[in-house]
Amino acid sequence: MPLENLADSVGIVIPQQIDFPEPVVLSSGRTLSALRIVYETYGTLNAARSNAVLVCHALSGHHHAAGYHSETDEKPGWWDYYIGPGKPIDTNRFFVVSLNNIGGCNGSTGPASINPETGKAWGSDFPKLRVRDWVKTQAMLMDALGIDVWAAVIGGSLGGMQAMRWCVDYPQRLRHCIAIASAMKLSAQNIAFNEIARQAITSDPDFHAGRYLEHDTSPRKGLAIARMVGHVTYLSSDAMGQKFGRDLRSGTFEPGSDASVEFQVGSYLRYQGEIFSDRFDANTYLLMTQALDYFDLAREFNDKPEQAFAKTDCQFMVISFTTDWRFSPERSREIANALIRAGRSVSYAEIDSDYGHDAFLIPIERYQKVLSAYMNSIEINGIEV
Amino acid sequence: MPLENLADSVGIVIPQQIDFPEPVVLSSGRTLSALRIVYETYGTLNAARSNAVLVCHALSGHHHAAGYHSETDEKPGWWDYYIGPGKPIDTNRFFVVSLNNIGGCNGSTGPASINPETGKAWGSDFPKLRVRDWVKTQAMLMDALGIDVWAAVIGGSLGGMQAMRWCVDYPQRLRHCIAIASAMKLSAQNIAFNEIARQAITSDPDFHAGRYLEHDTSPRKGLAIARMVGHVTYLSSDAMGQKFGRDLRSGTFEPGSDASVEFQVGSYLRYQGEIFSDRFDANTYLLMTQALDYFDLAREFNDKPEQAFAKTDCQFMVISFTTDWRFSPERSREIANALIRAGRSVSYAEIDSDYGHDAFLIPIERYQKVLSAYMNSIEINGIEV
Repeated sequence: MPLENLADSVGIVIPQQIDFPEPVVLSSGRTLSALRIVYETYGTLNAARSNAVLVCHALSGHHHAAGYHSETDEKPGWWDYYIGPGKPIDTNRFFVVSLNNIGGCNGSTGPASINPETGKAWGSDFPKLRVRDWVKTQAMLMDALGIDVWAAVIGGSLGGMQAMRWCVDYPQRLRHCIAIASAMKLSAQNIAFNEIARQAITSDPDFHAGRYLEHDTSPRKGLAIARMVGHVTYLSSDAMGQKFGRDLRSGTFEPGSDASVEFQVGSYLRYQGEIFSDRFDANTYLLMTQALDYFDLAREFNDKPEQAFAKTDCQFMVISFTTDWRFSPERSREIANALIRAGRSVSYAEIDSDYGHDAFLIPIERYQKVLSAYMNSIEINGIEV
Repeated sequence: MPLENLADSVGIVIPQQIDFPEPVVLSSGRTLSALRIVYETYGTLNAARSNAVLVCHALSGHHHAAGYHSETDEKPGWWDYYIGPGKPIDTNRFFVVSLNNIGGCNGSTGPASINPETGKAWGSDFPKLRVRDWVKTQAMLMDALGIDVWAAVIGGSLGGMQAMRWCVDYPQRLRHCIAIASAMKLSAQNIAFNEIARQAITSDPDFHAGRYLEHDTSPRKGLAIARMVGHVTYLSSDAMGQKFGRDLRSGTFEPGSDASVEFQVGSYLRYQGEIFSDRFDANTYLLMTQALDYFDLAREFNDKPEQAFAKTDCQFMVISFTTDWRFSPERSREIANALIRAGRSVSYAEIDSDYGHDAFLIPIERYQKVLSAYMNSIEINGIEV
């Protein structure tokens, strides 16, 4: 925990967990009889319970969004640039709730959890999930925490899809919806990249049809390739060029050598793939990419997103990044335009950035200012919820 | 062989092969003592030997660029839209030579050929190749065919790199250089996608460190994933959206189902991966992507491409496609600008197309007109070569 970061850090946080004894019926029709959710909170819930903000994580995220887990922890949570005292999601004002979604692999019930009916890990038997299942279980956590209405639900990428789904499924339970680098549905190209990732995982002989834990192994190589695909597509070409260029890690371009040349960018990607395989569960990756693919906000509204948004009373902030080619500004403009057609209040900001889709995780001055300004405008005093 | 296509087809062609008895020293310093090149020719070499055009293939291409191999052949060669009587590369005027590059897997000496020193397939022992090795062996074929100077060397993508390398290595042996959807060097993003493809191949347990033929197998699944990555990145997002949208092949979006949903785009990609694995050799894929990565036209010219182009006397045509994001118009403009700085004659056309990098293989009216106009302007009569 670097000392210089303490002033605007939420400090050391302790993950909490809650076990829901009642069974929950999922959108697939299947029932989870044992459900644990791991979460963290930052800041203090006020007496009116009007300052709670839900942070929804993306594909590979988890509950640890801000602060440190110990004195020796070197890296803070995944959105620490944006959550903390004086930061855009200001923990001096807001009570922030961040959870590991079900199906995840960071403590909440997921494919690596024990299926109480078999006594073995769920593996590939874990029910298929949709974004609405995460929203439903987030609402269960909300109830358990004694929160009636979120001041805001906020998320980037897949997290933004959850924020939008909140508006549809619980229109009276949030006052602000902030969707960052998101989309109302994936493009064919996005689905294609997810399909490649899934093929890499399921083609790995260590996948064992999803029952790899019973074989005391995991499809590490396939998951690493899946992560490499994700990693490349979350960056812009310019950002990769600036970071790596054509620099070599080993070998030479000089004629007269038959040795393989290794580029820095290749070495970096392989490393990122390997450390991801150490920390992530392949079945969770499959579940989450499928939920991404299936999400289509307007599907049940005659493909008219303005009808989906018509039910909600909340206000919206939509943010996109210029070089994000997986969730391009065009997708965010579609959200903003649908909200305008629905007569909703929406702020839209397109942030100049070289960092591709990953920009939503990175400190960018204008993004910080825009998000700060919006969050500061959210009323938390004198609110009856 | 569809009858309706015969009028402008080169008809049935028979692949030819040539064995070079003398050893050839490659850029790696290693020597190939047995070298076979498989090639096809279309049209007739004129008496002045001034109308020969060399077609260079891209990553997964081969010698069969035009016409049909038999009466029952359903598909013509890979560039049949552009090679034939009355077509842009008009076989009524030109004598077209198309070969399978060494290292390939369509008959020319490559990793699946027998290494005469061991009596076994070369496999991963095949020497590393660079674009200059292909140009050198293309010049050997040229000599064998009695051609002193090409009227034009033409290629798309990796083929365009070969055309440019001809200008540097044999500046007096070509009169026109046509580089389509190409680049003077790959970007970090391009290298990253190639690295993912290679990781998919080498991670496949059937790869056996490149000696899979000795194990009577091949890394089919890894090669299929490599092809899927290539396929998605050679298409534009818009083209994929138009072709597949979010259409389903199986399953349902209706709540209450736990079955996996299969999108058309995923099914299509898997199929493309599988048929590619049937026809292509994984070691060739590794070699060719490495040659792509290594290529850097200006590396030995102080990173100044105008110095590389300064030696040549030929004229240039550079073509790019608006939605090509792997070899973007910016890369082609860099070629054209370097040629202008070198005082060379260059025509540049940026073609509107939805089809991404694959556009160079597809019939597009303006592309056909531009290429026809340029090819028609090439003198073949009264030329002393």
